[in-house]
Amino acid sequence: MATMKAVVKTKPELGAELLDKPIPKPPEADWLVVKVRATSICGTDVHIYKWDPWSAERIGEKALPQVLGHEVAGEVVEVGPFCQRIKGGDYISAETHIYDPGDLTAMLGSPHVGMHMKIVGVDYDGCFAEYFTLPEKVCWVNDKSIPPEVACIQEPLGNAAYAVLGENADVAGKTMVITGDGPISLFAIGVARVCGVAKIIHFGKYDLNMEIARKMGADLQMYTNKTSPKERLEFVLDHTGGNGVDIALEMVGSQDSVNDCFAMVRKAGRLTAFGIAAESPLPIDYNNGIVFKGCQIHGINGRKIFDTWYRNCNLLAAGRLDPSPVITNLFTLADFKAGFDKMIERPRKSAKVVLFPDEQEYRAALKRRGEG
Amino acid sequence: MATMKAVVKTKPELGAELLDKPIPKPPEADWLVVKVRATSICGTDVHIYKWDPWSAERIGEKALPQVLGHEVAGEVVEVGPFCQRIKGGDYISAETHIYDPGDLTAMLGSPHVGMHMKIVGVDYDGCFAEYFTLPEKVCWVNDKSIPPEVACIQEPLGNAAYAVLGENADVAGKTMVITGDGPISLFAIGVARVCGVAKIIHFGKYDLNMEIARKMGADLQMYTNKTSPKERLEFVLDHTGGNGVDIALEMVGSQDSVNDCFAMVRKAGRLTAFGIAAESPLPIDYNNGIVFKGCQIHGINGRKIFDTWYRNCNLLAAGRLDPSPVITNLFTLADFKAGFDKMIERPRKSAKVVLFPDEQEYRAALKRRGEG
Amino acid sequence: MATMKAVVKTKPELGAELLDKPIPKPPEADWLVVKVRATSICGTDVHIYKWDPWSAERIGEKALPQVLGHEVAGEVVEVGPFCQRIKGGDYISAETHIYDPGDLTAMLGSPHVGMHMKIVGVDYDGCFAEYFTLPEKVCWVNDKSIPPEVACIQEPLGNAAYAVLGENADVAGKTMVITGDGPISLFAIGVARVCGVAKIIHFGKYDLNMEIARKMGADLQMYTNKTSPKERLEFVLDHTGGNGVDIALEMVGSQDSVNDCFAMVRKAGRLTAFGIAAESPLPIDYNNGIVFKGCQIHGINGRKIFDTWYRNCNLLAAGRLDPSPVITNLFTLADFKAGFDKMIERPRKSAKVVLFPDEQEYRAALKRRGEG
Amino acid sequence: MATMKAVVKTKPELGAELLDKPIPKPPEADWLVVKVRATSICGTDVHIYKWDPWSAERIGEKALPQVLGHEVAGEVVEVGPFCQRIKGGDYISAETHIYDPGDLTAMLGSPHVGMHMKIVGVDYDGCFAEYFTLPEKVCWVNDKSIPPEVACIQEPLGNAAYAVLGENADVAGKTMVITGDGPISLFAIGVARVCGVAKIIHFGKYDLNMEIARKMGADLQMYTNKTSPKERLEFVLDHTGGNGVDIALEMVGSQDSVNDCFAMVRKAGRLTAFGIAAESPLPIDYNNGIVFKGCQIHGINGRKIFDTWYRNCNLLAAGRLDPSPVITNLFTLADFKAGFDKMIERPRKSAKVVLFPDEQEYRAALKRRGEG
Repeated sequence: MATMKAVVKTKPELGAELLDKPIPKPPEADWLVVKVRATSICGTDVHIYKWDPWSAERIGEKALPQVLGHEVAGEVVEVGPFCQRIKGGDYISAETHIYDPGDLTAMLGSPHVGMHMKIVGVDYDGCFAEYFTLPEKVCWVNDKSIPPEVACIQEPLGNAAYAVLGENADVAGKTMVITGDGPISLFAIGVARVCGVAKIIHFGKYDLNMEIARKMGADLQMYTNKTSPKERLEFVLDHTGGNGVDIALEMVGSQDSVNDCFAMVRKAGRLTAFGIAAESPLPIDYNNGIVFKGCQIHGINGRKIFDTWYRNCNLLAAGRLDPSPVITNLFTLADFKAGFDKMIERPRKSAKVVLFPDEQEYRAALKRRGEG
Repeated sequence: MATMKAVVKTKPELGAELLDKPIPKPPEADWLVVKVRATSICGTDVHIYKWDPWSAERIGEKALPQVLGHEVAGEVVEVGPFCQRIKGGDYISAETHIYDPGDLTAMLGSPHVGMHMKIVGVDYDGCFAEYFTLPEKVCWVNDKSIPPEVACIQEPLGNAAYAVLGENADVAGKTMVITGDGPISLFAIGVARVCGVAKIIHFGKYDLNMEIARKMGADLQMYTNKTSPKERLEFVLDHTGGNGVDIALEMVGSQDSVNDCFAMVRKAGRLTAFGIAAESPLPIDYNNGIVFKGCQIHGINGRKIFDTWYRNCNLLAAGRLDPSPVITNLFTLADFKAGFDKMIERPRKSAKVVLFPDEQEYRAALKRRGEG
Repeated sequence: MATMKAVVKTKPELGAELLDKPIPKPPEADWLVVKVRATSICGTDVHIYKWDPWSAERIGEKALPQVLGHEVAGEVVEVGPFCQRIKGGDYISAETHIYDPGDLTAMLGSPHVGMHMKIVGVDYDGCFAEYFTLPEKVCWVNDKSIPPEVACIQEPLGNAAYAVLGENADVAGKTMVITGDGPISLFAIGVARVCGVAKIIHFGKYDLNMEIARKMGADLQMYTNKTSPKERLEFVLDHTGGNGVDIALEMVGSQDSVNDCFAMVRKAGRLTAFGIAAESPLPIDYNNGIVFKGCQIHGINGRKIFDTWYRNCNLLAAGRLDPSPVITNLFTLADFKAGFDKMIERPRKSAKVVLFPDEQEYRAALKRRGEG
Repeated sequence: MATMKAVVKTKPELGAELLDKPIPKPPEADWLVVKVRATSICGTDVHIYKWDPWSAERIGEKALPQVLGHEVAGEVVEVGPFCQRIKGGDYISAETHIYDPGDLTAMLGSPHVGMHMKIVGVDYDGCFAEYFTLPEKVCWVNDKSIPPEVACIQEPLGNAAYAVLGENADVAGKTMVITGDGPISLFAIGVARVCGVAKIIHFGKYDLNMEIARKMGADLQMYTNKTSPKERLEFVLDHTGGNGVDIALEMVGSQDSVNDCFAMVRKAGRLTAFGIAAESPLPIDYNNGIVFKGCQIHGINGRKIFDTWYRNCNLLAAGRLDPSPVITNLFTLADFKAGFDKMIERPRKSAKVVLFPDEQEYRAALKRRGEG
């Protein structure tokens, strides 16, 4: 039986192991097998790697061993008998959210927030491996011009685009606050810039990430760890004629950041609630921040399938959107521990980390980035 | 100098007085003078009547004496020299929100939530009087077929319609929760019914108001004071295929009601935040109620000027929408204390109370309602 | 081999035959077999029955013999191995548009207008039979309270609802023109009425259909065959304060009706283009009817999958929407020729005709309608 | 009495004259007087200059003499007694559409397409003068960083932005066709580029304008005068995966260009109808281009007041949008004939022509452009 290398969570404790595993069998129904060209580490992977309380409850010890990972670019090597859209040789990335077509949300056009959602790398073996398997319905065929280290980050880039665009994609010529240092905040700055947001005000706290934010298009910045809420609010009001921003993207989830965003969004504005609160329920200034403000709050989770993919892929293929400043570190899959270390390190010294199962792909990527 | 009767707040304590006041002078600029035909009591008037902490701070002792009231139907008797749209003899009702045309929100089409808003009966003398004055820009010309006791409640009916329709007016064939016993909740049920909401689930606590809710079109009801949050949620899930409702209207502002609504709205649904929280900040289930749910929250304050008025007026004139079950008590203006007593009484024994400066208008209205 | 009765188009000429055909085989993949309880005759079926130039070209002689019909309510009797959502015993109706999941429109949320669309009863054997087969992805599970003669007309009712609601479902409190005598026009009047359209102005030409339109909720009517375009336009302007209607539904496709609608819609209004033009290209008053008017035109074809189904099903199950006045004739499937004769007869003496494969279902339906 | 220079249409024939006219009197009500810093020539001005049949009918001989011009940037020197928002010294540009606040469209948020619209330079004396007067309600206060030759073209730039963004501003990551050589087409390319349109396909016919289009951001181009409709359609299909573009902007008004756009827009796409048809009614492929395609057509006239202004002004002030390549010629107001000659010349050798009443402003602008 053919085997492959895979990064496997084997024990309910910090860490993971590089093991030999059987290559997934020829797929049934509408599933398919993908040869992984590049895969990137998400915050969710870090939670599982650390085996924090969330992953202990969400995944559970019984599910182990399980392969990590869900952000991917790869080549389809085998398709199930009922695949209709994807064929062998297709260069794909994938939606992580394996929705149930019977969910009411799926039937009404919002499959990304269904009630019976399964997630690659959480409910199934993931893509930190040479091969993995997933259903056709979540596959997106990439434009061939997009290199694998970029194609694989389309999943978090999709989060970013959905957070920026919200439910109505009405951002052109508007002002926006974006909070946070993580890759999705940084990607969001890039998407906002490319999609015509006229003024991007960024709040973060790590030097490297603040610098990447500027490269991605932030116009104005303030360190949240060196300022008070009052200073930050005044900064925003000063740069928006006293009105606050048209749109605020909350992408941190801390009480402070949530408070900031509800205060900074203008009357009749829009607030994207993307950051997951460390504690929920969370106190919100319900009257002044929502009711009297007459604003809209869009809870954003996942990506629109495939509306978000289509837009991002078009922007990437056209060269309009360049997310590469956010990709700070490349490793081979065998060197995954170095990748996780980078992700865990605080103060942050990285943004997005990409892993390559194949050494040659890794070297080619380094070369494309002028690091080879 | 010609005088008129007016209900005047004279002292910073419970109550008001019926006094003789000069009829407002010929108006300047784009202001006009209205002879009041009917006026109704809003919760805001009750706050001021009671002189509770909100009104002590919002209006302040220095502003007294001040005429109460802002919900009105009347006839224009004199117009300022720069009125362009309204003329003497017009039968009008009025938007309470006197917006600043220089507010960014006003310039972008949302004048109802401006930064420099003034409110009739709060920042100026109100309409609990034989005559009052206001700017042309907030006047709406009524269809003559609408009787004054109905025309005057278009302002709160507008709140209700805006709360039901939200920012996008997409309600046809959907399911909806509406909370609360107040007139605006009851009006909302009527609007929802008329606008094609397919299933209206109402939560209230007073017998009379629950009965009115059924007359207005509630399909299913539950007493909030006789049930647990869990029972209420299960009730909603049972009647929505386990999904929750497409749209939830929070119109109470209590922690319980807010919790209910965030739990009852389905994934990718919409929640209207209309009720003013007794305490703000208010703890919200931010993760499960907003982020993971992927729902939209619309803070609703006031009415769309004049989109909401146009829709409601069309529905009233066509006889599609009959808000009269919500109008529980009629009094002459001289008998205003009886009206306030009705509004203050708990358990509630009333919904909407209408006052008539003119005895004949009062008797005609009673007759129309079969009570004369 | 088990056989069934089916209405089969056998020759490229007027007519069809009731033949014995094999019951469709156990389905493959995600297809399933349905036992038909009720099926209704669409204009498309009449085209094929007549074998007019459109059907000669669209279907072609080589495809014959083929079973007619696509509007259906029935019970699932067997499902393919990869069905995920529908199971045996489900009471379903079905979307006629068998979309290709690889179409860009399907991937972006508009599968109903894909490039590689197949249609039941046009590209495959249809449902004028005791059994027929179709893919799971287009099946809608009906509420059991909806009788089969109503459940089967949900497909054209869905056309009507989509035409009324357009792309944004914003109709509450608005004024609307609806043109035409056909079942979809009449259904549209019912949907408009239930969804809060405040004034429905209907244009038709046959007495029976004008009467049904009034039963469905038309407020104002005019015969198009007894009036001039100028009279019709003045009629609309008289009843809309000189503005024209907020929304016009063109559902005929004649030059006159199209001209009427472009003239009658108000500035910044919305026009639904649903009627198929007898000749295309069709001269349009491009400047005054579109550009200077600043209106939106929504081309409406099919139904939103399954947004439209969800709304209609909710309204039907709640008893809010009663389409039964539009159902003018019931026949057994064996008596299909009487049904087609009714559909073809001019002047029109019918609206919607329903056929029942089973005599007992037929008698039960007659009884429900008080005709048995 | 103080006088000023003004370009006046004096006779119903080709041409205009530079005359001394009295400076407009201190304004009444909410009107104000503006000292013109820069003004640009619109196609409408050219129609009037030529005194073609449209202007003979629209303006009429009796209205002469009348000052031409409506695109402007200037300084407010005097305000009427009821101005509330604008004050002396404000640096403004202006909406040309002087709407009636009593129009239904104005009351519902679309004042730009009202029934009783008056237009600066058409119904009133215009701004090809040292001073002119207009009502406060159409004035937009410019960001001071925007030079007058750019500020004055915000009016046609607003047409372009509205045409690109349509009614819903949803363009990010989409594909777009833009037709035409005129300044508004070229501005539209710039707006589309800045607002995240991922692929801009431009059709024009003059070398200079094709070159400007590339500078503004066109990705792909084709000459309409050197290609067939079939070639153009295939070109678009080849670059959109065979689907056609998400959005097509018809900005010419010729039968060919209209046909192209209805053919090139994809199913469920959006078409902006901006170009005024030389002849109307115009034959449209109603069935395949609208009904079966399920597309939306947005008739675009004017600009959203002030939504479009706000977005454009933000983009200009941020330096995101640079319309200067479209501004091909600067002249002093005294040299207006040279400007009109440039506009009339065919083949086109210009795009936008700006006039300066003040010689020093003219020289400063040349200098800013590196032409001084």
